[in-house]
Amino acid sequence: MEIVKTVDELREILKRYKNNSIGFVPTMGALHDGHISLIKRSHDENDIVVVSIFVNPTQFLAGEDLDKYPRRDEVDKKICELAKVDILFMPNIDDMYTGNDEVKVVAPAVRGYVLEGFIRPGHFDGVLRVVCKLFNIVKPTNAYFGKKDAQQLVLIQQMVKDLFMDINVVPCELIRDNDGLALSSRNVYLTQEQRTQALAIPKSLKSAAKKIGMGELDVSVLKALMSETMSGLNVEYIAFVDREFNEINKIEVKNSIILVAARVGNTRLIDNIWI
Amino acid sequence: MEIVKTVDELREILKRYKNNSIGFVPTMGALHDGHISLIKRSHDENDIVVVSIFVNPTQFLAGEDLDKYPRRDEVDKKICELAKVDILFMPNIDDMYTGNDEVKVVAPAVRGYVLEGFIRPGHFDGVLRVVCKLFNIVKPTNAYFGKKDAQQLVLIQQMVKDLFMDINVVPCELIRDNDGLALSSRNVYLTQEQRTQALAIPKSLKSAAKKIGMGELDVSVLKALMSETMSGLNVEYIAFVDREFNEINKIEVKNSIILVAARVGNTRLIDNIWI
Repeated sequence: MEIVKTVDELREILKRYKNNSIGFVPTMGALHDGHISLIKRSHDENDIVVVSIFVNPTQFLAGEDLDKYPRRDEVDKKICELAKVDILFMPNIDDMYTGNDEVKVVAPAVRGYVLEGFIRPGHFDGVLRVVCKLFNIVKPTNAYFGKKDAQQLVLIQQMVKDLFMDINVVPCELIRDNDGLALSSRNVYLTQEQRTQALAIPKSLKSAAKKIGMGELDVSVLKALMSETMSGLNVEYIAFVDREFNEINKIEVKNSIILVAARVGNTRLIDNIWI
Repeated sequence: MEIVKTVDELREILKRYKNNSIGFVPTMGALHDGHISLIKRSHDENDIVVVSIFVNPTQFLAGEDLDKYPRRDEVDKKICELAKVDILFMPNIDDMYTGNDEVKVVAPAVRGYVLEGFIRPGHFDGVLRVVCKLFNIVKPTNAYFGKKDAQQLVLIQQMVKDLFMDINVVPCELIRDNDGLALSSRNVYLTQEQRTQALAIPKSLKSAAKKIGMGELDVSVLKALMSETMSGLNVEYIAFVDREFNEINKIEVKNSIILVAARVGNTRLIDNIWI
């Protein structure tokens, strides 16, 4: 595995793979089994695999957890090596952001500012901006993103379409821990007690899915059920959208997503289920 | 010459040239000798030449001349054929803008909103957005832009740098008509009398350059001289900037640009000289 620190070095190395398919897994590090599943899939579908680890400052709002976001470079390197990553790109902030007053990429006015974008205004501008930069540097054939960050995934798909990027964005399944909690680098913030409380989130999603399986398609009924299941938590939103992220009143099987955001202590958790 | 109307068709054709250098000249049509000089240079430096003609709506402000901007598709095709263009891309608006609420590219907060960007707020957002789209579709090796649109050129260079686009932006000399007026598709709007008046613009730039040659480097002196020369015109700005578009008080040879914008009748004209 080659560990690369600068854009110029990465570009030089990638010249060797001009005629190969490149799978790309952009991450913020603190790698878990969710990331590893992306890397594995990228391996199956491409000649070489590039992983980036970059805690992108522009997607954190003032007062968010940028400074304490888990950084575990040495462990992450080991994980990538074991997962047979070909190139691990770990740039510094000054490599990725070179000017004070840059040309920016901004999320769509509505879809980028609802749900996660409403609670974290500007978050997706930062996400799209760094992903655009990374895509232009790596020029992957396929890029892998988890469904866990559903809104991010849909917005990245939209960016690729709107800006005519010649890249295939591959949505990958959300991975859960044995107890049902969706894997997230932020789970390390939880105490054991908070973690137990947090299980109400996947439980509520599972119960909604079960009800849908039994024929209940009315969003207001499902929402009430989920609220009840999560009554012990500080729920930020329970949202029902179609795969294009428009709000829906009635579940349409194979075209709906249920999303939850909740705070457990100071930790924000998001989870979802694709119906 | 192949004339291509859709993005998909263009991408299919460009697959043939995967191992060739591609020169790209994006235009809004109404081609003149300035454009032809870009095409010629592109020919000299690349295996194939792609020209696009697209009157980009997002770079026109409400009330500007989008509807009456000169469109001369048949003449332009002839010109491109004579100039030995390999591929002429003439997309429709619906090909280039597919959504209502798109991911956007926006100009830098300061540099994109001074001078032209101050008088035409949002203009450069539209320019960068369409050029980003076109770059991602054509994936050129080299892209050619005239120094006539100096601020546009500098902002496109910045976009390529900030977003890590792997494209070489080539600045090309401004071309003047025999009478000294900078070539522009908008010159067709001028009556003969207005055209004669408009010559005060290149005359003022030439007189400033002459003074500089004689050792006068003080911007306030030069500006007063230019104002006097253009006293019969409705001058919007006379600006002195360095090559990074920071305002300057003193000319620095090989690092300065003098820019003028003026209205002659209803026609806005811009011109500049690189010192």
